[in-house]
Amino acid sequence: MADKLDLDTALGKLQGWSKADDGKHAISKTFKFADFSTAFGFMSAMATQAEKADHHPEWFNVYNTVEVTLTTHDAGGVTEKDISLGQKMDSLAAKLA
Amino acid sequence: MADKLDLDTALGKLQGWSKADDGKHAISKTFKFADFSTAFGFMSAMATQAEKADHHPEWFNVYNTVEVTLTTHDAGGVTEKDISLGQKMDSLAAKLA
Amino acid sequence: MADKLDLDTALGKLQGWSKADDGKHAISKTFKFADFSTAFGFMSAMATQAEKADHHPEWFNVYNTVEVTLTTHDAGGVTEKDISLGQKMDSLAAKLA
Amino acid sequence: MADKLDLDTALGKLQGWSKADDGKHAISKTFKFADFSTAFGFMSAMATQAEKADHHPEWFNVYNTVEVTLTTHDAGGVTEKDISLGQKMDSLAAKLA
Repeated sequence: MADKLDLDTALGKLQGWSKADDGKHAISKTFKFADFSTAFGFMSAMATQAEKADHHPEWFNVYNTVEVTLTTHDAGGVTEKDISLGQKMDSLAAKLA
Repeated sequence: MADKLDLDTALGKLQGWSKADDGKHAISKTFKFADFSTAFGFMSAMATQAEKADHHPEWFNVYNTVEVTLTTHDAGGVTEKDISLGQKMDSLAAKLA
Repeated sequence: MADKLDLDTALGKLQGWSKADDGKHAISKTFKFADFSTAFGFMSAMATQAEKADHHPEWFNVYNTVEVTLTTHDAGGVTEKDISLGQKMDSLAAKLA
Repeated sequence: MADKLDLDTALGKLQGWSKADDGKHAISKTFKFADFSTAFGFMSAMATQAEKADHHPEWFNVYNTVEVTLTTHDAGGVTEKDISLGQKMDSLAAKLA
């Protein structure tokens, strides 16, 4: 099982993420894209990565916005799995900006 | 512009939807699928319909669950556009069940 | 590495697939859906499964049609990986019919 | 109905497209991406645009490659609809490169 990480350590490995509002051991980021099509293309690419890693985001979409929260439920908090998926999201979003 | 509908009238044309929790003039439904792949396939099919109608859902996904809220922002509430998208969602979700 | 299977054995485990036209050790099936949205939802669901298995289809889409060819390149032909992905496709397509 | 365009005129408005191999009045381009996830994200974004325009590509995908052919069936050849979709593809692919 992946180990729960210190949240600040986790945030230091990602771009523009923050601690989840609700006090859970989780990290969140709001991505903005040019339009719905681009936002949904981002989600589709990341959906294949999430399924591959068997590690799925909590994500909310409306139009060009995708709000993502990452945590690892069976570790009770943020782990390397979240860092890995978050970095993939950062990388793709940077290209799509 | 589409007209704002009575919420109960709107709900009567859909399956398993309810008034949004937050008191807004909106309708919500939580869809459950077999797994993440099926949930995401549902979202992809509906994403193309949403873009076609230029009418986009607010939706939240985690693993096999998709929580949808529909309203028409420039009408200040639920309209025929929401009924149309909601019916497409109901129809596809029934097939995927 | 997955073992190359006898083609008829492989076809016996699937629904409506046939040997590839070009004489390669591969299997093909043409899926028809109600419309483009449904076809693309099918592809999205299967894309996540393909990436998860690190085993990707050759597929062609136009409107409501998806033509799939499956083979395992590094085995030089059809293997259990193709059966597994093909069965997932058959199962989802049956629901969407 | 959209008017059939001169093929060279059409190609002049796009980046890296060519006349279809089979002599049809159609244009083709092969897109290469970093990996399957990126290729499929591209397809998902474009699928929503295609459905919106009610104008769908013929496209073939295997792993990181997407081969697209565009033509307008009821015009018997390439029209402004194809230019429009092709330009959207060029633009998104340039970002994803």
